[in-house]
Amino acid sequence: MFDVIKKDLEVLEQELRKAVASEHELVNEVGTHIVTSGGKRLRPALCLLAARGGKDFDLQRILPLAVSLELIHTASLVHDDVIDESGTRRGEATANAKWGNQVAILSGDYIFARAFSLIASAGYSNRVSLRLAELVCNLSVGEIIQDNAVYQASKGYEDYYCRIQKKTADFLEICCDLGAEVGGLAPEEGKQLAEYGHCIGMAFQITDDLLDILQTEETMGKPAGNDIRQGIVTLPVIRALEVSPEAEVLRDIVTNPEMTAADVERALAIVKATDGIDVAKEKADEYLERAKATLPASLPEEVKEAYVMVADFIGDRDY
Amino acid sequence: MFDVIKKDLEVLEQELRKAVASEHELVNEVGTHIVTSGGKRLRPALCLLAARGGKDFDLQRILPLAVSLELIHTASLVHDDVIDESGTRRGEATANAKWGNQVAILSGDYIFARAFSLIASAGYSNRVSLRLAELVCNLSVGEIIQDNAVYQASKGYEDYYCRIQKKTADFLEICCDLGAEVGGLAPEEGKQLAEYGHCIGMAFQITDDLLDILQTEETMGKPAGNDIRQGIVTLPVIRALEVSPEAEVLRDIVTNPEMTAADVERALAIVKATDGIDVAKEKADEYLERAKATLPASLPEEVKEAYVMVADFIGDRDY
Repeated sequence: MFDVIKKDLEVLEQELRKAVASEHELVNEVGTHIVTSGGKRLRPALCLLAARGGKDFDLQRILPLAVSLELIHTASLVHDDVIDESGTRRGEATANAKWGNQVAILSGDYIFARAFSLIASAGYSNRVSLRLAELVCNLSVGEIIQDNAVYQASKGYEDYYCRIQKKTADFLEICCDLGAEVGGLAPEEGKQLAEYGHCIGMAFQITDDLLDILQTEETMGKPAGNDIRQGIVTLPVIRALEVSPEAEVLRDIVTNPEMTAADVERALAIVKATDGIDVAKEKADEYLERAKATLPASLPEEVKEAYVMVADFIGDRDY
Repeated sequence: MFDVIKKDLEVLEQELRKAVASEHELVNEVGTHIVTSGGKRLRPALCLLAARGGKDFDLQRILPLAVSLELIHTASLVHDDVIDESGTRRGEATANAKWGNQVAILSGDYIFARAFSLIASAGYSNRVSLRLAELVCNLSVGEIIQDNAVYQASKGYEDYYCRIQKKTADFLEICCDLGAEVGGLAPEEGKQLAEYGHCIGMAFQITDDLLDILQTEETMGKPAGNDIRQGIVTLPVIRALEVSPEAEVLRDIVTNPEMTAADVERALAIVKATDGIDVAKEKADEYLERAKATLPASLPEEVKEAYVMVADFIGDRDY
């Protein structure tokens, strides 16, 4: 998918390992495990593509930023796994499962700090450091809010869009925005790429939430309805709460922390009987169209193609 | 103790609250609780004093740094409390006890990130950002190593000094160093103040470790020998392992994760029967003398006096 940055991404892998390397064996082992456990590298890819759009692309100049974006993402997943007591992620044992909460919490802190250390060493503008620090603030705050507003079906569309923006879209926006800045794109192009990042981020999260409803245990390795079980209402459920003749039954289930597996099945059936799925698909498509339409005309053709492919990939994820 | 920066510290309190303020009620409540639960403000005080040594002291210029130093310290305590499952700190309920691990972990991340956001906004040199990021790396790595080398009495003096440097002395050094830089002191004065910070940090931790051996449950609200119980050997114990006729008994106890309360008592008695306590006190005094001797002659008298008082305070802590 990323021919134009294929080699850049290979270098990135090495730099990620270097970034968490430590003279202390355990720290080194944990850090390496964490940064090499899967990961699609979507965030650094978006950043590298933006920089490739600039006239004087300089891989060494952009690398610390691309690496930091992945480190921040990874550190936040490490802490999420502690919080959710997850045993596996992307088929690999989580840091908390392998080394306990103590090592996982401190390793997450270490990786966050390594990201800020790389950024400071690179000598980017203060705007770069500031946006990254605010990103981490917003990711943390967004999760505190989400986790403390569970089992409350009263939240509507606005709350949902606000939530997925904080959780996903802001991050992808920043990858494009800062990649464009460091890559030396014109401010107007940077704004357009930032808008692209926002839109594919919104589409990505809507799609992710849809998959949680449509997946089968066979395809995904985990049962459907995870969000409902955790008290998180997503777009199709919000729609169903609005239009379903069984809205009250659905509301009773999704607001009940003691819901049974049968309740989850029932809730899924109620949602699927409405147009909730279609509404969500349409919304994701709308965002992806907007994303593609906003790509600066001045981008090199192969960069533009790659960005279009990213958008199409998000739209094509297997329902 | 801090007459010369008394008013600065009052402003600092307000700024600390502002730094963690959030439009989200829960985040605001947690953040405020965390930054207002005790805390001697030693780190910002050291930073403010250094800056007060400069010719053109500017409180507004130094405040973001002073606030960030306290935020980083606080965030790391919040994560420590999650790891240690502590219910109280400085007589107040910990964040994990009040709101659970999830909120505490994410609030710690939020507060770390707020510190880096303040630093980026202030537009200090890259060296300031870099040293702070590396500080957080080292604090995390130091704790991973310490917590994974417990119940190993084989570690000697060198390991101990290295450990307390990472845990405490580097932090106090950085407070003085960066305060001097932002305050506009000459590089030579900055180096001397950094050395002062290092020395009082070493003395502070040696004293803290001593208190853990000498305290009684009445004076400190917790039983003595906490470090031994957790498998952490400190200076008096290392000395006793070297000189006590009962060194082997002591070694067997401190390397046994299953040690009983009676074992801890026995270990304390063995340590107290040696000159381990005196050796540690002498070492702390040596560091404090070195700290005072290294203070730049050019400092304003009231700043110098305050720095001397800090050193004396550390030396006078109640054994």
